[in-house]
Amino acid sequence: MKAPRIVIIGGVAGGASAAARARRHSEEAEIIVVERGPDVSFANCGLPYHIGGEIEDRSELALQTPESLRSLLNLDVRTLSEAIEIDPARQEVTLRSVRDGSLSHVGYDRLILSPGASPLRPPLPGINHPSILTLRNLHDMDRIMEKLDSAQSVAIIGAGFIGLEMAEQLVHLGKKVSLVELQPQVLPQLDAEMVQALERELSEHGIELILGDGIDGFEDRQGRPIAHLKSGRELVTDLVVLSIGVRPESQLAQQAGLELGPRGHIRVDAYQRTNVAHVYAVGDVCESPDPLLGGHVAIALGGPANRQGRTAADHIFLGDQALPYRGSIGTSIVRLFDQTAGIAGASERRLQMADLPYRTVTVNGPSHASYFPGASTITLKILWDPSDGRVLGAQAIGRDGVDKRLDVLATAIHGHLTIDDLVHLEFAYAPPFSSAKDVVNIAGFAATNIRDGMLVPVAHLEEVRDAQIIDVRPPAAVEKLPVPGARNIPLPTLRARLSEIDRDRPVCTICQMGKTSYFAARILANHGYDARSILGGAHHQAPRSA
Amino acid sequence: MKAPRIVIIGGVAGGASAAARARRHSEEAEIIVVERGPDVSFANCGLPYHIGGEIEDRSELALQTPESLRSLLNLDVRTLSEAIEIDPARQEVTLRSVRDGSLSHVGYDRLILSPGASPLRPPLPGINHPSILTLRNLHDMDRIMEKLDSAQSVAIIGAGFIGLEMAEQLVHLGKKVSLVELQPQVLPQLDAEMVQALERELSEHGIELILGDGIDGFEDRQGRPIAHLKSGRELVTDLVVLSIGVRPESQLAQQAGLELGPRGHIRVDAYQRTNVAHVYAVGDVCESPDPLLGGHVAIALGGPANRQGRTAADHIFLGDQALPYRGSIGTSIVRLFDQTAGIAGASERRLQMADLPYRTVTVNGPSHASYFPGASTITLKILWDPSDGRVLGAQAIGRDGVDKRLDVLATAIHGHLTIDDLVHLEFAYAPPFSSAKDVVNIAGFAATNIRDGMLVPVAHLEEVRDAQIIDVRPPAAVEKLPVPGARNIPLPTLRARLSEIDRDRPVCTICQMGKTSYFAARILANHGYDARSILGGAHHQAPRSA
Repeated sequence: MKAPRIVIIGGVAGGASAAARARRHSEEAEIIVVERGPDVSFANCGLPYHIGGEIEDRSELALQTPESLRSLLNLDVRTLSEAIEIDPARQEVTLRSVRDGSLSHVGYDRLILSPGASPLRPPLPGINHPSILTLRNLHDMDRIMEKLDSAQSVAIIGAGFIGLEMAEQLVHLGKKVSLVELQPQVLPQLDAEMVQALERELSEHGIELILGDGIDGFEDRQGRPIAHLKSGRELVTDLVVLSIGVRPESQLAQQAGLELGPRGHIRVDAYQRTNVAHVYAVGDVCESPDPLLGGHVAIALGGPANRQGRTAADHIFLGDQALPYRGSIGTSIVRLFDQTAGIAGASERRLQMADLPYRTVTVNGPSHASYFPGASTITLKILWDPSDGRVLGAQAIGRDGVDKRLDVLATAIHGHLTIDDLVHLEFAYAPPFSSAKDVVNIAGFAATNIRDGMLVPVAHLEEVRDAQIIDVRPPAAVEKLPVPGARNIPLPTLRARLSEIDRDRPVCTICQMGKTSYFAARILANHGYDARSILGGAHHQAPRSA
Repeated sequence: MKAPRIVIIGGVAGGASAAARARRHSEEAEIIVVERGPDVSFANCGLPYHIGGEIEDRSELALQTPESLRSLLNLDVRTLSEAIEIDPARQEVTLRSVRDGSLSHVGYDRLILSPGASPLRPPLPGINHPSILTLRNLHDMDRIMEKLDSAQSVAIIGAGFIGLEMAEQLVHLGKKVSLVELQPQVLPQLDAEMVQALERELSEHGIELILGDGIDGFEDRQGRPIAHLKSGRELVTDLVVLSIGVRPESQLAQQAGLELGPRGHIRVDAYQRTNVAHVYAVGDVCESPDPLLGGHVAIALGGPANRQGRTAADHIFLGDQALPYRGSIGTSIVRLFDQTAGIAGASERRLQMADLPYRTVTVNGPSHASYFPGASTITLKILWDPSDGRVLGAQAIGRDGVDKRLDVLATAIHGHLTIDDLVHLEFAYAPPFSSAKDVVNIAGFAATNIRDGMLVPVAHLEEVRDAQIIDVRPPAAVEKLPVPGARNIPLPTLRARLSEIDRDRPVCTICQMGKTSYFAARILANHGYDARSILGGAHHQAPRSA
């Protein structure tokens, strides 16, 4: 195929990547980028940070302008231009000018759909109040910033990644922030026990956290958007930001007869092809084969969108010689004040929904050598397939080094590595960066110990309320963070004090982080006790109010 | 086997890990740890940082004491006790007390050798001067600190990892530091072009760097150790620290008939077994199967030592059910003031010595989203096997995030991932942590482009002095960091100015980091030019003096 005409609908992330890659394949190709909004290729992940002032200069967010794309890539960029119809038989798209409503028709040899996904705005009473906003693009950002000039208090609905980023930035601006989440936890992408430190962090920064509650509707009261919660409560703030998720913009695709998934995403194959000839889809609008759980998965993230755009362009020029898209494992991260939390791969919830067997372990370890200044604790949870030990998911939270461990585990998941591999991974170790046994290795030790049934069984504190609980920490540590119902026998004295422990009842050991208790349980088991070690220790089991 | 007696020679890193793991297998085992020095299980990687004051409290370096090992692990710890003979036939070790020279004999069921490696002290004239010191243990550290009380100037011989760490810490103490290295570069574990920023960093901090020069001998002059360099130069300082490498402490093993490798390391199999029944070796003294290049490799690092100790203990109790040791890929890192540099896997030098084919690419990318404050540039070099694309090695340098990329690539190397995998790795992306296209992905893009021969060829600046060099950066950037001999045609104007470029001669494009120049070369190639893009850009090719 020589000099094809490629029409790309949507000029952000996936669309922009596809255009750039296509131009690299061919100087002669005609590449038309159609964008409904005024901007192309902006840094949508940076929007909350400009609102909060951390990114000072708005122009930093414009990665490219229509002009720069024209001069750098020789693209035909048509902003403020909306695609309203696709005719696959004639290979033609109908465009409507946002400015004057005029229509035009553009033929294509190849069509790439990258319209993205729009923030959900559920059809609730009062939802169209002018102070109920969403955040998707630069225009939305400007509107929120305008409203913030006079807003003292803000309700954020939805405590996912964007909701948390917004909450942090609004606190930086001195706003009074309420955060409402329908689930009984923040960041429902992660398992509940992993986000307790985030919830503490929110409370410590004065954010009112309303969990397990939803919105029945809104009403206007003297210009303010009053939220009526399902619990009956009334939430009075000056501004509401909705961040409850996104909906793929697939109406156009549906009209054109493209196959959609159950939640309205365009279904594509590994080359980003839809079921209609010469039409590709990339980015948040599509769902692609799920590399972890089988079936299809839709993951609305910038990295996957960019790679999918690249894949579509490669396939246009290389056909099946192109490298297929490998699928998304949904690696995500959020910084929330001094805490960072994130996930790679599947959570317990996703594995349960897919009805797949899994095992899990949670460990704590230092961000770098504990004897070197500035070390903090990382809590790391690993999920694996009991049939072959393959790592299926990882979640981490801590003050420092969380991104590194997630990226390592994303790499391990991508490469089908197992819990045995985690034992043997050899990281860059010097005291400022890591430990000779990194927390990822420690997770491997713990997971293989569980898998091999070789050492002691472990338990969650909630499961063992009937057992004798022996706290093996030094008395000073016990005083700082006591474990209700536990008896203190410090590890160095344990062998000498075995007579104090009832041999006829199960015994559980607990310590600060779950490591010393494992040593203690191992001693007890070797002496014939029915002994278990409490996973994660007192640190991990600290109640939410602590 | 019930209740074996395990004798472990050497109580640091590998030996301590073996002891701890053995105790976890069995409460009944008799575990005797023999240590020539007064200390066990200390943080040897932390020694330079206590000398420099960054780790203030000396006691932080004692991870365990003989007493704590006794009470926690019920070990029989015999410090100041030197093993002087092994009798494999009788399964017996002869010990000599360092205090009084008295001899004793200890039988073993299993013997684990973990004597480590000692700093090299070449037999040069004057080498025994009391102000020529090495750094291996707490005692050495104390001696260096004592000498530093009165020393104004220090010569460090050897610019490997420890030499660089020492140099940094001595500058913190206000010392005048000279750093002498026999090779023409610092950190010879890395390829020369990757460490230029380290050499600048050293010079900027007032360290005198003497490369490509060695020591002929020392002489005493009024109590000071004068170094005579091979170049004829005389180096006059108050103290000399030797950090030119280590020698495995394998004399005892050799006398006992254990098989040694070409440089004196004890040869072991994947369970850490030596060629003599019931005798294991772990840590710096041994060389184990090389997972990357075949043959055997000795890697003197803490992480591998710990894992080898664990493997030996597992094999004692589980036999061949134990998880074999997977081998070391030598992941290493050093912080030098504001720079961090490191390596995972093989360097060009090691691949050349092994006579293995490889390809390489060097890219630059931001440590996190370039529009978010605090981003800095990471230079990343990847080496791969041209036959299957498997990643063989990675080197990185930058101000921030180098450890993360090295750990990701160590994981990729361990998992036999390829350059195609690097394209598809999905990292935890939020603006403070990463970019939607991380520098590791960018390395994958560049490497696969080279492999596929699909886009433009690349070249190193040194290789193309005869070509037309077109600098495609904006004029302001060119002014700040000019490239000698290059003509400036900024990318946005390139298509319009093709007539200025001679079609009959090869053309090379260069930019700041190697990305824009690639786009430009792609345009030229598509217009029929013989075009190449300069790897790494002007940033990477900055001369040492810049």
